[in-house]
Amino acid sequence: MSNDELSALRRGTGSGLAFVVSGPSGAGKNTAISALIARVPGLVYSVSHTTRAPRPGERNGVDYYFVSDTEFAEMVATGAFVEHAVYLGDRYGTSKAEMKRLTARGADVVLNVDVQGACTLRRVGVPGVTLSFVFFAPPSLSQLGDRLRARGSESEGEIAERLRAAAREMKSLEIFDYLVLNGDLATAVDELRAIVMAERLRVVGHA
Amino acid sequence: MSNDELSALRRGTGSGLAFVVSGPSGAGKNTAISALIARVPGLVYSVSHTTRAPRPGERNGVDYYFVSDTEFAEMVATGAFVEHAVYLGDRYGTSKAEMKRLTARGADVVLNVDVQGACTLRRVGVPGVTLSFVFFAPPSLSQLGDRLRARGSESEGEIAERLRAAAREMKSLEIFDYLVLNGDLATAVDELRAIVMAERLRVVGHA
Repeated sequence: MSNDELSALRRGTGSGLAFVVSGPSGAGKNTAISALIARVPGLVYSVSHTTRAPRPGERNGVDYYFVSDTEFAEMVATGAFVEHAVYLGDRYGTSKAEMKRLTARGADVVLNVDVQGACTLRRVGVPGVTLSFVFFAPPSLSQLGDRLRARGSESEGEIAERLRAAAREMKSLEIFDYLVLNGDLATAVDELRAIVMAERLRVVGHA
Repeated sequence: MSNDELSALRRGTGSGLAFVVSGPSGAGKNTAISALIARVPGLVYSVSHTTRAPRPGERNGVDYYFVSDTEFAEMVATGAFVEHAVYLGDRYGTSKAEMKRLTARGADVVLNVDVQGACTLRRVGVPGVTLSFVFFAPPSLSQLGDRLRARGSESEGEIAERLRAAAREMKSLEIFDYLVLNGDLATAVDELRAIVMAERLRVVGHA
């Protein structure tokens, strides 16, 4: 019995694991995911398509693929998405091509999708991919309001709308496997890392 | 929605989690479990009963409750064990009293049981306790032989018997949730820690 044989009995890295990280906007999810990927080997970021305008500093093909309403509608029509959803008037989607590109690289994938998209992924799944669902939330809704104000990219009306959305999104928690509360960024990243490690340690073939 | 309310939506610490760590004798399991408990807050060790003689340095009530064959048989007769098994001629068991004592302390429990005991626990469960099963193994069986020789507490005949037992035990891997390979102690402890953390982050009520 060689070392390789025993290693093959657990999932390991790059065997088609994907981590769907979702939760209220403004919880610090993007920052935590970037730190997670920088820290854990063999993890790559699935870049979503969106019709919303780039925020300052966001780069096309890195943070999102920024596309027009027409381009997005064409992709929907041709079945190019694994999941797509409307969030506060903008469209977001995970393309099949992006998922295929990433899993072919022998890495595990992190998907950053809204709660509606996560619910779709839970329902339809992705062939050949084992999905784990992580709800990433602030410790409280009042903290979420503070964070959105600090970000300064939304008006008070938009912030109120996002807080109402967050309260709705909490109701979908039951479809998720894990809950990470971002009270402290380093702790939250450590918790995300633990989830990735534990899923990689799972015995092959075990539910 | 307060911080406490959101925290209550995940299992957290001391909500009746128990980690059953099992695997071939000589894989370094005891050392790794001690390091895990020293490192992770809110984890306590479930002390097993055994009829085997103490090894040098082992303390009654800390490493094991060392009992006579008669005492052990009486405990079996009165239904005092959650699980008990014979391993290489010696009897080992986890008492109901020990489990009750530990879960009442508001901590999560680590059980160090042989593979036969783990199979029993998987089958019968423990009321009010959520069990996770971790198979702890050496990277290879040849390394296991080296480790047993280095420990110096068994004869060559006993070592050969333990190696045959290990090969048999590997066949029960499928009842386990996680596989940790102890190539490097620090890495193995980090992996055990990730498993404990991830299980604590699970959404309450989710499978």
